[in-house]
Amino acid sequence: MTTSSTMPDKGPIIILVNPQLAENIGMTARAMLNCGLYQMRLVAPKESPLSEKALAASSGADIILQNAQIYPSTEEAIADCDCIYATTARRRGMIKPIYTANFATQEIINQPQHRYGILFGPERTGLHNDDVCLANAIIEIPLNPEHCSLNLSQAVLLVAYEWYQKFISAPQQQFVKGKTEFADKEKITLFLKTIEDKLENSGIFTQPEKRQHMVINLRNIFTRCHITEQELNTLYGVINHLNIPNHSQKS
Amino acid sequence: MTTSSTMPDKGPIIILVNPQLAENIGMTARAMLNCGLYQMRLVAPKESPLSEKALAASSGADIILQNAQIYPSTEEAIADCDCIYATTARRRGMIKPIYTANFATQEIINQPQHRYGILFGPERTGLHNDDVCLANAIIEIPLNPEHCSLNLSQAVLLVAYEWYQKFISAPQQQFVKGKTEFADKEKITLFLKTIEDKLENSGIFTQPEKRQHMVINLRNIFTRCHITEQELNTLYGVINHLNIPNHSQKS
Repeated sequence: MTTSSTMPDKGPIIILVNPQLAENIGMTARAMLNCGLYQMRLVAPKESPLSEKALAASSGADIILQNAQIYPSTEEAIADCDCIYATTARRRGMIKPIYTANFATQEIINQPQHRYGILFGPERTGLHNDDVCLANAIIEIPLNPEHCSLNLSQAVLLVAYEWYQKFISAPQQQFVKGKTEFADKEKITLFLKTIEDKLENSGIFTQPEKRQHMVINLRNIFTRCHITEQELNTLYGVINHLNIPNHSQKS
Repeated sequence: MTTSSTMPDKGPIIILVNPQLAENIGMTARAMLNCGLYQMRLVAPKESPLSEKALAASSGADIILQNAQIYPSTEEAIADCDCIYATTARRRGMIKPIYTANFATQEIINQPQHRYGILFGPERTGLHNDDVCLANAIIEIPLNPEHCSLNLSQAVLLVAYEWYQKFISAPQQQFVKGKTEFADKEKITLFLKTIEDKLENSGIFTQPEKRQHMVINLRNIFTRCHITEQELNTLYGVINHLNIPNHSQKS
């Protein structure tokens, strides 16, 4: 487990304003750790981040809860930050830029010299206007307008997730194949020739057009699926085990 | 509330394989509705999607639970789909493409002619290999490798969120200003002239360099923050109320 002294302090500070339920504090800690965010601040929480309920709900993200800092007011919680975003689900007559979670987290990544804090309001009411107006911009997560009420920890999860995706820049697609390698084209060609010969001998190709059609389909299948050596061995095993009738020998 | 007959069927089908807890089925329904996904399938769930616990946890996403379809096996649940993704947190020696949630959902958006299903495994174990190998590709959500265990509904939320962002293509930034308009440049110039004159008269500019420095800063502030007419009126109100000493009159 990460210890307090080695806790990374990159990434925005997650500030929960007046959270009501210990479970939500715990689940938020879990979501933060899932996404590599370590700094939690709580403004006048109703329950302790170290309560049994919070610790249980964090599913092992104790480190976040143990290091959570508690403040009496939002102003004090944000005092050492130089840019604040406020998350809201409803618009409320503020004159303010509104960013998606995607856009806001890209801003955070683009400006590593700044210390960012992100405010999340209490479960039932969301942030008060007195808190929203302290923010440089609003984060509004684009959701189904017919059902946009998110659980507190899920709102944190989505923002933290957006940040982490940009922070790590994970490859968008990979191919896992364990210890085997892709079969090279020579092996694939040999394999295709083997089945084509076996089919030829079995007498399945009654008409030349049928032969061409089947051969092209088989070649497409076994090249498109980017077959590995391990899989090729399985296919040879199957083909050799099957007793494919050899009509050419019989005739 | 959306009724069954008008339920949109765009977007992938969310398939929970052997979910153990009714709460997670309910929370998943909520996450789906948050992100505009309506089609839930359950493979041999331990508890009913219409149980009290599931309905309570759905926070009003009953419509998803009422229309959830139950199947005895994964094969039957995916039978009418033509592309399946399996979500996993651990790699397990499969020879298979791995996509991020971002990449996989872009594929879904790019291929509207296909019916996609996304498999999510039971809470403790995740999907069995027997289910994973039915999938065209694996979705692996990039998360902190030191703490990548997600709650079931949160895994669904992240995938559903990624899909919805592409489905709606929300503007990444906006500016809300209610019924007021941005003040035009003439009004801003007049306002700046007003404060500069008042400051001039107050005797604050003891040195020409100081004057230039302050004036440039003030102009930068009030142009950068893209001020509205409503806010300009507030500023005029403040300035007119303040009794700014008029040294030039006194001298």
